[in-house]
Amino acid sequence: MIKPPWCREEFEARLRAKGAYYHIHHPFHIAMNNGQCTTEQIRGWVANRFYYQTIIPIKDAAILANCNDRDARRLWVQRIIDHDGHSGEDGGIEAWLRLGEACGMRRAELLEHRHLLPGVRFAVDAYLNFARRATWQEAACSSLTELFAPDIHQKRLDNWPAHYAWIEPSGYQYFRSRLNEARRDVEHGLRVTLDYFTTREQQKHALTLLQFKLDILWSMLDAVTMAYVHHTPPYHNCEMPKHD
Amino acid sequence: MIKPPWCREEFEARLRAKGAYYHIHHPFHIAMNNGQCTTEQIRGWVANRFYYQTIIPIKDAAILANCNDRDARRLWVQRIIDHDGHSGEDGGIEAWLRLGEACGMRRAELLEHRHLLPGVRFAVDAYLNFARRATWQEAACSSLTELFAPDIHQKRLDNWPAHYAWIEPSGYQYFRSRLNEARRDVEHGLRVTLDYFTTREQQKHALTLLQFKLDILWSMLDAVTMAYVHHTPPYHNCEMPKHD
Repeated sequence: MIKPPWCREEFEARLRAKGAYYHIHHPFHIAMNNGQCTTEQIRGWVANRFYYQTIIPIKDAAILANCNDRDARRLWVQRIIDHDGHSGEDGGIEAWLRLGEACGMRRAELLEHRHLLPGVRFAVDAYLNFARRATWQEAACSSLTELFAPDIHQKRLDNWPAHYAWIEPSGYQYFRSRLNEARRDVEHGLRVTLDYFTTREQQKHALTLLQFKLDILWSMLDAVTMAYVHHTPPYHNCEMPKHD
Repeated sequence: MIKPPWCREEFEARLRAKGAYYHIHHPFHIAMNNGQCTTEQIRGWVANRFYYQTIIPIKDAAILANCNDRDARRLWVQRIIDHDGHSGEDGGIEAWLRLGEACGMRRAELLEHRHLLPGVRFAVDAYLNFARRATWQEAACSSLTELFAPDIHQKRLDNWPAHYAWIEPSGYQYFRSRLNEARRDVEHGLRVTLDYFTTREQQKHALTLLQFKLDILWSMLDAVTMAYVHHTPPYHNCEMPKHD
């Protein structure tokens, strides 16, 4: 017997319940937010996460390239602009480079992805490859981890300055910018998802897509944990961030 | 000043030296080979590695799909046949399923990838996506981890029966079959690589491609380590293999 679709409110509640799997609950992120990370660990996270930042606008371009809805493209293109910058705005990639500098790294270290761990690269590339092959609505659904992002950014803004006084406060602009950008993006992504996935089977598929994106964020922290907590980086020539 | 290419022997020696980064040196693999793995750890590795096994023929089909050289395709297609089976031969995927059964798992557990860790999926998919986009010669070069495979299979055949008496010996056919298949495959892959990458810059690129594949195998064991050694599996609903 085919089950009826969840009503819009129930479907949205189930998407929001996926927040239980958000990387805010990963042991590395908990430690980072509690002030328990070393300088090397913070730098390693910032440098590795930078690879994700650089892929976001390419991922969004892949979504645009699969989108035949002009109205949707007009909204979605803003995500590319937010990260790459445009007409006087530096954008998110530049803001993340400043976070790296505020943590005592040089721009070249980040731009050349000198500290990039293979496990982080594979997880981030999985997101890009998914966006290239999925429908734009599936990709929009996967991006709903943004539902949970304002909270994670706010917690960083609340806690990092006290715990990590060695980080230049000018570096926190990225987290501040994303508070509002994430809220605006998620409003659109959620509307698309609730409109597009209408049978029960499609709604369950939507939950799987969101879980996939959650797994990506989680796996990135797993690779960072292996390298900077368990001190078993890949037997490979990526450099570890220097500790002063 | 442009440096001259390495001679064929020097280039081959540098490819072979990459064996230092082979996953035979990963702490999880060392423990597995020394008999220090629990039943759950062995099963977790076998179940996760099965995903890699299922992707191999699809990866090889992607390589064929980029190959305009009939002679090369005539050789390469054998790899698909080796894994999928053909005319009375069961093939490598079936052999790996039997290894799983010999370890006390049910075929359905493996076929449904019930224990598959996201980090393993992302690493394996990175290999497939690379094969889809690379030239067939670049993909052939990346496959040269097979240079080091007969040694790893032989060590498993030598050590596992004594250390893991609970594994049905009938399960080891996959390792035995690959001893010769890997030697034949690598002879072709090595010839292609030595012929195709002829400038110093290209030769260095070849070493990077081989390192990429080494990183994939290594990252798979990292994900397995996080789940089954550190007991921090992803906060996610993939099942852990049952321990009797």
